[in-house]
Amino acid sequence: MTGENALFVDLTAVTLQDTDVAYGAIPDAAIAVRGGVVDWVGPASDLPASSRDLPRHSLGGRCVTPGLIDCHTHIVHGGNRAVEFEMRLNGASYEEVARAGGGIVSTVSATRDATQADLLTDALRRVDALMAEGVTVIEIKSGYGLDIETELRMLRVARAIGERRAIRVITTFLGAHATPADYAGRDDAYIDEACIPALRAAHRDGLVDAVDGFCEGIAFQPAQIARVFDVARDLGLPVKLHAEQLSNLGGAALAASYGALSADHIEYLDEDGVRAMAAAGTTAVLLPGAFYTLRETQAPPVAALRQHGVPMALATDINPGSSPLNSLLLTLNMGCTLFRLTPEEALRGVTQNAARALGLTDCGTIASGMRADLAVWDIEHPAELAYRIGFNPLHSRIIGGAL
Amino acid sequence: MTGENALFVDLTAVTLQDTDVAYGAIPDAAIAVRGGVVDWVGPASDLPASSRDLPRHSLGGRCVTPGLIDCHTHIVHGGNRAVEFEMRLNGASYEEVARAGGGIVSTVSATRDATQADLLTDALRRVDALMAEGVTVIEIKSGYGLDIETELRMLRVARAIGERRAIRVITTFLGAHATPADYAGRDDAYIDEACIPALRAAHRDGLVDAVDGFCEGIAFQPAQIARVFDVARDLGLPVKLHAEQLSNLGGAALAASYGALSADHIEYLDEDGVRAMAAAGTTAVLLPGAFYTLRETQAPPVAALRQHGVPMALATDINPGSSPLNSLLLTLNMGCTLFRLTPEEALRGVTQNAARALGLTDCGTIASGMRADLAVWDIEHPAELAYRIGFNPLHSRIIGGAL
Ligand SMILES: [Zn+2]
Ligand SMILES: [Zn+2]
Repeated sequence: MTGENALFVDLTAVTLQDTDVAYGAIPDAAIAVRGGVVDWVGPASDLPASSRDLPRHSLGGRCVTPGLIDCHTHIVHGGNRAVEFEMRLNGASYEEVARAGGGIVSTVSATRDATQADLLTDALRRVDALMAEGVTVIEIKSGYGLDIETELRMLRVARAIGERRAIRVITTFLGAHATPADYAGRDDAYIDEACIPALRAAHRDGLVDAVDGFCEGIAFQPAQIARVFDVARDLGLPVKLHAEQLSNLGGAALAASYGALSADHIEYLDEDGVRAMAAAGTTAVLLPGAFYTLRETQAPPVAALRQHGVPMALATDINPGSSPLNSLLLTLNMGCTLFRLTPEEALRGVTQNAARALGLTDCGTIASGMRADLAVWDIEHPAELAYRIGFNPLHSRIIGGAL
Repeated sequence: MTGENALFVDLTAVTLQDTDVAYGAIPDAAIAVRGGVVDWVGPASDLPASSRDLPRHSLGGRCVTPGLIDCHTHIVHGGNRAVEFEMRLNGASYEEVARAGGGIVSTVSATRDATQADLLTDALRRVDALMAEGVTVIEIKSGYGLDIETELRMLRVARAIGERRAIRVITTFLGAHATPADYAGRDDAYIDEACIPALRAAHRDGLVDAVDGFCEGIAFQPAQIARVFDVARDLGLPVKLHAEQLSNLGGAALAASYGALSADHIEYLDEDGVRAMAAAGTTAVLLPGAFYTLRETQAPPVAALRQHGVPMALATDINPGSSPLNSLLLTLNMGCTLFRLTPEEALRGVTQNAARALGLTDCGTIASGMRADLAVWDIEHPAELAYRIGFNPLHSRIIGGAL
């Protein structure tokens, strides 16, 4: 944070505060920033006298939102899976793809083989594309190392991204992502001998902000996830979970029982799961990129989430297999088109509720006390952000009050 | 065209020529350009002595494709329909949207109300985004004026885009897009009194490269389209048609009977229609952006098109209602994900076959005699262009041999 003092005028403040107005929008607004933090936001005509002498910047009548937050990514990884994508479209069977070294195994190999510098260079291209869309906070998961050394390397790369770029990085340990080939058929041994020791080592090195797992028939059972979550609890780390993506194993309720920040995917979540999330204050993170790529047909239970007041976030899930989606703006459109979110829900999903999904209380809305990390848009109405497909109307980013 | 002489080396030439090799790709290639035209392309080791002294540019081992071609767009239009998009997602009925002035009527009003300068400024933002993805040729339709004056204004804006930017513009007259409110219930009168006179006037002013129509239950009947096509034939203009998007009226076969360049959308095309297109050499232009936005479930008959050897092109269909899709790269991914094209078919669809859909014989592949309008990519394999979602790996554009 640069700690600027500044006054932004001639703008519509799309605050995403919970007011009576759609998007918490304030036309003809001013935003006063002191020390990189929003000191005051409101109608310019109400600007307090004490703020009138701050260095003034006109934003030309543009819309200003909080900086966008991508709260679920696997953006650090080796290689890509374009050739596998092509094989499948040429009609290759699952076995043929596997025999050719495809699937998550190929990403694990490529990640293990990559140096920290290579992983960083490769990830920065993708991070830069997100930043160009006004993203100011990104969550980054491990989970393609599946051994102690590589899991730590991935998390170090994630931390390095936050040092190299004007973006805030929240790390998540995802050792319980898949069982690596060297532990095939020995999931429990993998959890005990590699995953949990890697978590302890990564935590010791200050590399872990939260702990995640993949609870699914093709991944880990609830009892295995619970063992990892128990360690997270001992270490004082919050948890979240990839749950109910392809079937209903009760993962979201399990996560809620640990007071999880979020349950993610949740296409197959039932109403009991929704209730458990509501009671625990767990955010639903919807990932339409994977739904689109996998050509799924069962959408998450948006109506039930709304009814029970579960906050909904949206994220790219960027990963080389099931969601090579590198655009959070496109994710807004997919959230509306595929999951029938409203444009306002979609925008709250990458600001207010994405912050909640990460346990952050100093970003996600434009309000006094929040970081002055903002996105300035060449649009007339905030619904345009979700309406357009593959178009980036970002004018500029403001980080810590600095344009 | 700048008419440069140049020699490009240290590249993979993804020529899209019909060779035995996937993508017509040539590793370790060289491309010799004289007077803005490709003089020679092949393995660098075979470079003719006569080309060795051309001004040499290394492309750092990158992949080079023909410049991309977006062969179906409505990129010139007034206003946007973000608020209508939002109303629908908030549950508004068709009637409520219409009562609020939504639908194509709103775009016609906004286009009629806009000055030529306003339309140009607005369209250039969208054109610039396409150019940033390596697009070097774009087709632009009229069809939101629906009166003589505004149809001509739209086409003048399209021509102006080609003068303001290093992009080649092919114009299409689409007066038979919809019946305007002032002709409600009098489709035939509209065709005779406005559409055909507008076509003649636009042609007289040199504004028309081809003639299009929208043949559908909600638009025009085949007999009405035929009247417009008869005029096109008299004027020596090629035709194309929006056909079989929502139902099967036999539009593609009608278009084929006029030797149409293309039939576009064609989700509901039957095998007889495919045969008619094959016999006439008509290209199928697939538009996955509209399919995605309208949440259609019937995909075009890709297997039958393949079987009968109908060339398939892909385009954005960028328009403010059914396809606010501003990315041709994303269109590649949608063509693969939604229509199950292979990445090679998708890439041929925005190069070789898009040129064919526009009747152009001097672009769409990298081959001797073709314009040296090329796209240089930071990728290792051409399948990456279709695999990634919302990510632009363009390194640079080469126009007429100039980097
Ligand atoms: Zn994930
Ligand atoms: Zn169209």
